[in-house]
Amino acid sequence: MAAVDAGHATRGHQTVSAAGTLYGLGVGPGDPELLTLKALRIIRTAPVIAYPAPEHGDSFARRIVSGYLSPAKHEIPIRIPMVSARFPAEEIYDEAAAKIDEYLMQGDDVAVLCEGDPFFYGSFMYLFGRLAERHTTEVVPGVSSLVACACVAHMPLAARNDVLTVVPAPLDEGALAARLEGVEAAAIIKLARHFAKVRRVLDRLGLCENARYIEHASAANQRILPLNAVQDAEVPYFSMILVHRRGQAWR
Amino acid sequence: MAAVDAGHATRGHQTVSAAGTLYGLGVGPGDPELLTLKALRIIRTAPVIAYPAPEHGDSFARRIVSGYLSPAKHEIPIRIPMVSARFPAEEIYDEAAAKIDEYLMQGDDVAVLCEGDPFFYGSFMYLFGRLAERHTTEVVPGVSSLVACACVAHMPLAARNDVLTVVPAPLDEGALAARLEGVEAAAIIKLARHFAKVRRVLDRLGLCENARYIEHASAANQRILPLNAVQDAEVPYFSMILVHRRGQAWR
Repeated sequence: MAAVDAGHATRGHQTVSAAGTLYGLGVGPGDPELLTLKALRIIRTAPVIAYPAPEHGDSFARRIVSGYLSPAKHEIPIRIPMVSARFPAEEIYDEAAAKIDEYLMQGDDVAVLCEGDPFFYGSFMYLFGRLAERHTTEVVPGVSSLVACACVAHMPLAARNDVLTVVPAPLDEGALAARLEGVEAAAIIKLARHFAKVRRVLDRLGLCENARYIEHASAANQRILPLNAVQDAEVPYFSMILVHRRGQAWR
Repeated sequence: MAAVDAGHATRGHQTVSAAGTLYGLGVGPGDPELLTLKALRIIRTAPVIAYPAPEHGDSFARRIVSGYLSPAKHEIPIRIPMVSARFPAEEIYDEAAAKIDEYLMQGDDVAVLCEGDPFFYGSFMYLFGRLAERHTTEVVPGVSSLVACACVAHMPLAARNDVLTVVPAPLDEGALAARLEGVEAAAIIKLARHFAKVRRVLDRLGLCENARYIEHASAANQRILPLNAVQDAEVPYFSMILVHRRGQAWR
């Protein structure tokens, strides 16, 4: 009998399974039909799934794929408090990585579900940083919120030699203005309670008319609005402003 | 009988079909398994597909989905000369839009295949600009080359409050340096014959060590290299450099 055979190895007197594979799976922006064929195949076959979730309540990433899950799966919710003194919440990712590591060591594949794409501002990178050196890891790209917002708003992101700048809204007002001044094309992400500040900056730069606000792109509760129709207090985290200096990129 | 019934309307003495729907379909970066469920459904049902193609030879977008096409489909290749005095090639898009318009007017849905995502520097916007005001149009986002490169290179694009800058390589050396100086995270796209220039700029800015070169991400001929291992003369259009000031975004 060979020492390594069909994924099994003999270690001392004990036969142990080879370790499982860690998958980071982009599950797209919200519409379950925007899942890739590859993500669907892995979700169906992996015995363990992990996903980010709020401290209380449902996981958005899990909800996107819930129609494809069987009750037999092991599930690891990674609960991240919404208000955290530090970011990233080191202990939470340490603990989640340890749980995932256990499954991988006993030979089970683990699929971590990621809203949008795993590596576009996604929290999967904190698990990847803890686990990828120890385990076979595959990161499966997904439809990011960036392109989903552009498509549903009928507003191409950029064309030809446009520079496209993606700016997180939590930056302070001066930094936002510096980053957005003179841009050809920009996406301002992570709006939430920062919306009013961003609108002030765009207004001062004369960019409001060429901007569009999109929330929950591709999901059932999607909304697309001009900036002056948005109520500051209602802006969720999953929202974005797209702006193009020429109004539409193809001009 | 109702005036509008099952998609048909009576106009004068003649019964005409309602016009078809124009779809812009992101087909992902190269791996056919990175197609979305939605794009697959529309490709299977639309009687007409259109796609960009070189002046001579195969279409990359069509090749990605070729396993899902039936011989019964009408096909409209949109042949774009690689060397063009002007860009976009107005007459070529005028002509393609006219052909697509004919099918739509006779009631057929037309799916335009787009490499990656339709609205991330995609040529679909030139058809969209000509047709969307006259026809029902749906743009289906896809996995962009941007996130595909990040995932296959195991290199997250950006984290937390990083600004991410997407820079087309055809910009002149001074403009490239101005756009890349001080960046936290950047993707330099459309490399081809501009690779050596981009590498010079990154070298002067001290960013080469934190950069990675990726070509044909997710396709069978994918390559991932450090910048000093790339042969200038071999760099294709479908390639990208990713760079992060911290080396890895999660740090």
